[in-house]
Amino acid sequence: MQPTACLIIIGNEILSGRTQDKNVAWLATALNNQGIKLVHVRIIPDTEQIIIETLNACRLDYDYVFTTGGIGPTHDDITSAAVAKAFGRTLIRHLEAEKRLLAHYKPEQINEARMKMADIPEGATLIDNPVSTAPGFQLENVFVLAGVPNIMQAMFDCLKSGLRTGEKTLSRSLKTNLAEGTLAKSLSEIQDRYPAVEIGSYPHFQFNTLSTSLVFRSTDPKLLDAALEETKKALVALGGEAEELLS
Amino acid sequence: MQPTACLIIIGNEILSGRTQDKNVAWLATALNNQGIKLVHVRIIPDTEQIIIETLNACRLDYDYVFTTGGIGPTHDDITSAAVAKAFGRTLIRHLEAEKRLLAHYKPEQINEARMKMADIPEGATLIDNPVSTAPGFQLENVFVLAGVPNIMQAMFDCLKSGLRTGEKTLSRSLKTNLAEGTLAKSLSEIQDRYPAVEIGSYPHFQFNTLSTSLVFRSTDPKLLDAALEETKKALVALGGEAEELLS
Repeated sequence: MQPTACLIIIGNEILSGRTQDKNVAWLATALNNQGIKLVHVRIIPDTEQIIIETLNACRLDYDYVFTTGGIGPTHDDITSAAVAKAFGRTLIRHLEAEKRLLAHYKPEQINEARMKMADIPEGATLIDNPVSTAPGFQLENVFVLAGVPNIMQAMFDCLKSGLRTGEKTLSRSLKTNLAEGTLAKSLSEIQDRYPAVEIGSYPHFQFNTLSTSLVFRSTDPKLLDAALEETKKALVALGGEAEELLS
Repeated sequence: MQPTACLIIIGNEILSGRTQDKNVAWLATALNNQGIKLVHVRIIPDTEQIIIETLNACRLDYDYVFTTGGIGPTHDDITSAAVAKAFGRTLIRHLEAEKRLLAHYKPEQINEARMKMADIPEGATLIDNPVSTAPGFQLENVFVLAGVPNIMQAMFDCLKSGLRTGEKTLSRSLKTNLAEGTLAKSLSEIQDRYPAVEIGSYPHFQFNTLSTSLVFRSTDPKLLDAALEETKKALVALGGEAEELLS
C-alpha cells in the first residue's frame, strides 16, 4: 500500500488569486517519486483557528501531512504557533535553530522578528533549510515547510529520506484526435477490465480543434502497458489516431 | 459583509501533479470582482464517497460552493451523480439539457456517453456552456462547473450575475529591497493600526538577491492608501526602497 499524503497550503496570497500556486504539482510529483500518494489538498487563509482545525482534521486522516507557508519573520507568519496549539504543545525557542540563525545573520541583522523563526513546538525536530537557513520542523506525521517554492523544494529534499516509501505510481499517456464522447464507451470497458489501472480522460479545446489526452496510472507496469495497448487498438478501431505522449 | 466561497477541485490529474491547476487563481480573481471572498479550496480525487463527504461538509460552511471537473462523458466523470447523492436527490435526464445536446451534435455523434451529460440532480437549474454546450448546474448554493479552464471561465461568466455581491476587495502592492526580517517590526505596528487592511509579506529569493513584496488588501480605499503610505515612509526610514507594483 502506498502511504497517503495531504498538503495544507496556508496562504492568503493563493486564495486572493494574486499568486499562482506552484507547490501542489511539484510536491505531488516529488511524493510520487517516493511512492507516496497525494490524495488531498486544502488551501486555507492565514487564520489561527482555521489552521488549527484543518491540521487536526487532516493529521488523523492521512499518513503524512505537509504544510506550506507562514513560517517567516513577519506578523502574518503564524503557522508555528498554530501548529503548537493544534498539538497542545508549548512553542519554545529551539536552541539548535537559534544557533543556526545567529550564525547565518550579521550581528546588525539579528532582531526579535528574525529570532522568532527559531520558535517551534516543544518536541518537534528541525527540517534543514539549505536556501535561507530558517528551518522547518516535523511533529509526529506533520511536516511544516516554507511557502516559497524553491525553499519548500529544498526542505523536502532534506526530509524525504525519512519518509516511509511505497510503490511508485507509473504513468503513460496517449493523445487522440477523437472526442471524449466518441471513445467513452470503449474506454469504460477497458477501465472495467483493468481496475488496477486508473484511466483518466481529459479533453482539450484549442483553436476550435478538439483532442483528448488519456492518462494511465498504475503501480503495475505490465497492467499499465496492457491497458494502454488495448486502448490504442480501440482508438484505431474507432477511426482515430493514438499517439503516445512522452513526458 | 462579503459572501464567502469555497472551491472544490475534483481531479486526479491535479493531485498526481500531471496538470498544473489554473482554476484557483482565475476563480479567486473573478469572485473578488463580484465582491465575493474565496476562503477555502479543496482538491480531491475522482472518488464518489469523497466528493459526497467534501461537498456536504463545505456547502454548510460557505455561502457559495463551486466545483470544477468530472461532468464530461467518460467513466471518470462522476461529479453529477455524486452531487445528486450528496443532496439525496435523484439523477434525472434534464429535458432542456438533452435538447441542447441533440441540437449540438451531428446525428452520428449522438450516443449514450454524450447524453449522460444531460443527467443532473432533480431540481437543479442549468448553467450555460457557450464553449462546448454540455451544461453545468446549480443546486441550492452549489455550482457545478467543468474543469477545463476556458469552459469553467465561460460558465462562470454566465452565472455570475445571479450571485449576491459584496464590496470588492481592493489591492495595492509595494516591492522593497529590504529583507522581511528587517521590516517585520515596523510592518507589524502598521498592521496593528490598520486592522481593516490585510497586509501580507512575501519574500523572493532570485539570483541570490532578496526582495520582499508587501500586499495591502481592504474594501476601504482610504484605509488602504493610508496603510500603504505609512509603510512607504517606514521602509525609507529603514534605509530601503519602496516601489509600488502596478498590477
